Amino acid sequence: MPENTDVRTKGFHKRTPVDKALNTLLRKVKPLGAERVQLVDALDRVLAQKVVALHDSPPFSRGAMDGYALKGENTFGASQTNPIYFKLKGKVLTGETMNLRIHEFEAARIMTGAPMPEGANAVAMFEYVKEIEDEIEVLKPVTPGKNVSLKGEDVKKGDVLLRKGRKIKPQDVAIMATMGAAELPVYRQPTVGIIATGDELREPGSMLRSAEIYNANSYALHALVERSGGLPEIRGIVGDDYEGMKGAVRNALRADLVLISGATSVGERDFIPKVTADLGEVLIHGVAMRPGEPTGFGVVDDKLVFMLPGYPVAAIFAYETFVRPVLEKMQGLETSRIYPKIRGQLKRKIASELGRRDYVRVRLDFTGEQPMVEPIRTSGSGIISSLVRADGFVVVPENTEGLEQGTIVEVNVF
Amino acid sequence: MPENTDVRTKGFHKRTPVDKALNTLLRKVKPLGAERVQLVDALDRVLAQKVVALHDSPPFSRGAMDGYALKGENTFGASQTNPIYFKLKGKVLTGETMNLRIHEFEAARIMTGAPMPEGANAVAMFEYVKEIEDEIEVLKPVTPGKNVSLKGEDVKKGDVLLRKGRKIKPQDVAIMATMGAAELPVYRQPTVGIIATGDELREPGSMLRSAEIYNANSYALHALVERSGGLPEIRGIVGDDYEGMKGAVRNALRADLVLISGATSVGERDFIPKVTADLGEVLIHGVAMRPGEPTGFGVVDDKLVFMLPGYPVAAIFAYETFVRPVLEKMQGLETSRIYPKIRGQLKRKIASELGRRDYVRVRLDFTGEQPMVEPIRTSGSGIISSLVRADGFVVVPENTEGLEQGTIVEVNVF
Repeated sequence: MPENTDVRTKGFHKRTPVDKALNTLLRKVKPLGAERVQLVDALDRVLAQKVVALHDSPPFSRGAMDGYALKGENTFGASQTNPIYFKLKGKVLTGETMNLRIHEFEAARIMTGAPMPEGANAVAMFEYVKEIEDEIEVLKPVTPGKNVSLKGEDVKKGDVLLRKGRKIKPQDVAIMATMGAAELPVYRQPTVGIIATGDELREPGSMLRSAEIYNANSYALHALVERSGGLPEIRGIVGDDYEGMKGAVRNALRADLVLISGATSVGERDFIPKVTADLGEVLIHGVAMRPGEPTGFGVVDDKLVFMLPGYPVAAIFAYETFVRPVLEKMQGLETSRIYPKIRGQLKRKIASELGRRDYVRVRLDFTGEQPMVEPIRTSGSGIISSLVRADGFVVVPENTEGLEQGTIVEVNVF
Repeated sequence: MPENTDVRTKGFHKRTPVDKALNTLLRKVKPLGAERVQLVDALDRVLAQKVVALHDSPPFSRGAMDGYALKGENTFGASQTNPIYFKLKGKVLTGETMNLRIHEFEAARIMTGAPMPEGANAVAMFEYVKEIEDEIEVLKPVTPGKNVSLKGEDVKKGDVLLRKGRKIKPQDVAIMATMGAAELPVYRQPTVGIIATGDELREPGSMLRSAEIYNANSYALHALVERSGGLPEIRGIVGDDYEGMKGAVRNALRADLVLISGATSVGERDFIPKVTADLGEVLIHGVAMRPGEPTGFGVVDDKLVFMLPGYPVAAIFAYETFVRPVLEKMQGLETSRIYPKIRGQLKRKIASELGRRDYVRVRLDFTGEQPMVEPIRTSGSGIISSLVRADGFVVVPENTEGLEQGTIVEVNVF
């Protein structure tokens, strides 16, 4: 077993700023190909083409109320005391075509959604009409166009309905159905291989021996990938051994992207950077962020390999900072999902380091006049419970040594 | 075919206020039973029990850095010019138990995550240590407790980790994995039968004859139910015929809940209220909201049956107002999902009716100093494109006749 010869046990020589690292990464990424999905599978997928209307909607003018189709101008002057009489010519039902033509002072009974008979341009509602055998009395005028849903009033043939890169919402599904589309062109979802490293790791559900802990990262990353629209593939735990890790990474490369957590720092058994370098190329190793400093990424066989920290909290923040934007770009997403934001006042000072971006877990307190933001005291990025208790996080940018108590900050809410 | 004998062609006699209708509904609903799911299937499900920690995490005290485990107090006074010597007793690797005991001025090399040897209480980082054969020189003092992750510092046995009714987030999955849980107890997801009614409807993908339109509601409702955490089951289209509708509703009752769109108003072929009354009981029919007035609900075989408007926009708002809160309660959700909110100034007046709640589709304009809110002009709830174009909606409450231009309003963002 080769020793990690160029081991750097003295910390990172260089830490790349977050934005620079992210740009390096995003330049390597382009959207995956397209595929077609059924309407019922389209929610939250990303459109790979703009959608243009192939026909008008509604495809014909129709009644928008139950009532009587007639010429609106014939009703002018009608009132309770001075009803206007119309000859009843028939009844138009939904889903039926009738060769019915309405002339002056003629009417046809019509159901909501039924096609307007030719010649008619308004629907007088039942409320204002009395039916007497083959005649009706109209008791109130109705403007031409009233209670009619005109051909093409919702969508006109040739209208751009949905832009490429849009994440599909329920109302988008509705409009596509209205257009008669049974399938939609969407970007393929990236598959993501997930590897956890560490001799001390066991899978949840098994028994721990002493000195062992459970693998949390694979499951956290699985959930995060799912939430980013990717297709996660858990590829198990690999021990702290160079050859084993190399094999695991190679196998995981079936996926579009590989996430490895642990063994990514600069310790003597942190083999992952060397594995990545030997299989391909390391682009970045060490990022000026906390938590998440021992983050890096490389390219193997034209695929991105992420080296994420072993500590779950650090792995989660590194994921959100680097992996999610990449997965979003691979899916062709136009705009990135953002956290809802709340402004509040800092209850306690936050210390930070110049040149480093900090992600500080906080709780929100709404009992006072304005929301108060309380940084959660933790002794490090091993403390997952801090993330569970947190309502969100505050970003302390690189150009400051910290935030004073009382500062108004923006909280990214989970 | 029985005619709808008690047909009320003159509009709704009574329209129930939104909040009253919702309360009537929610009183009929309780959470479904629980089931167990694997960790990888737990995201966004709702916990059916609180989760209490069965053991400490970490389960043993461990090194939080690569370095040398020793007694911190022995390093006091150390410096570059005055190093303190420790006898090197061995090496502790991750995942391994060693019966190693550290006495005064002894040290053991330790990897991040490896168990602290007995007697040691701090880790001196590599940066500040020189290793010389079986001795080390410590060049900087390290406080007792430093670089050690103490047994139970993340989670203590007996801690309540997650509350019942919580929607599971990625970090919750992480903490459950840390606890060794392979499965979680969650509420069952409600199944929802979806029926569309109307002789004029055809499924997307088929050819339209004249007077026909495509079924949009089933697909919009499918997407909405998915987004609310339910399991949608599309049950096709049923024509405007009493017996057909009755059969369709009866079949759909295999699900926990039934949604029917169309034929719910007071027209002569609006058979759904009668079908519901004949099979069970109608609780509410007609709600003081726009769009969505012809909304109602009843109970058949102890299951809620929703009568939703045929117009897609109205069906969607009726869904969000009534169905979503019900599905959330059935899943045991503690707090309802809320729309992100943005405040902005109204560009144009909105007219409304006293006693009715209006949901007005709007666009947001961020070009000026403050967000401007522009109501979308539409001719009715048939206009799905208005929802696609909208950035969100403004609620005009019952106690006002409208909102003046320039009013500051809260926009619910899609």
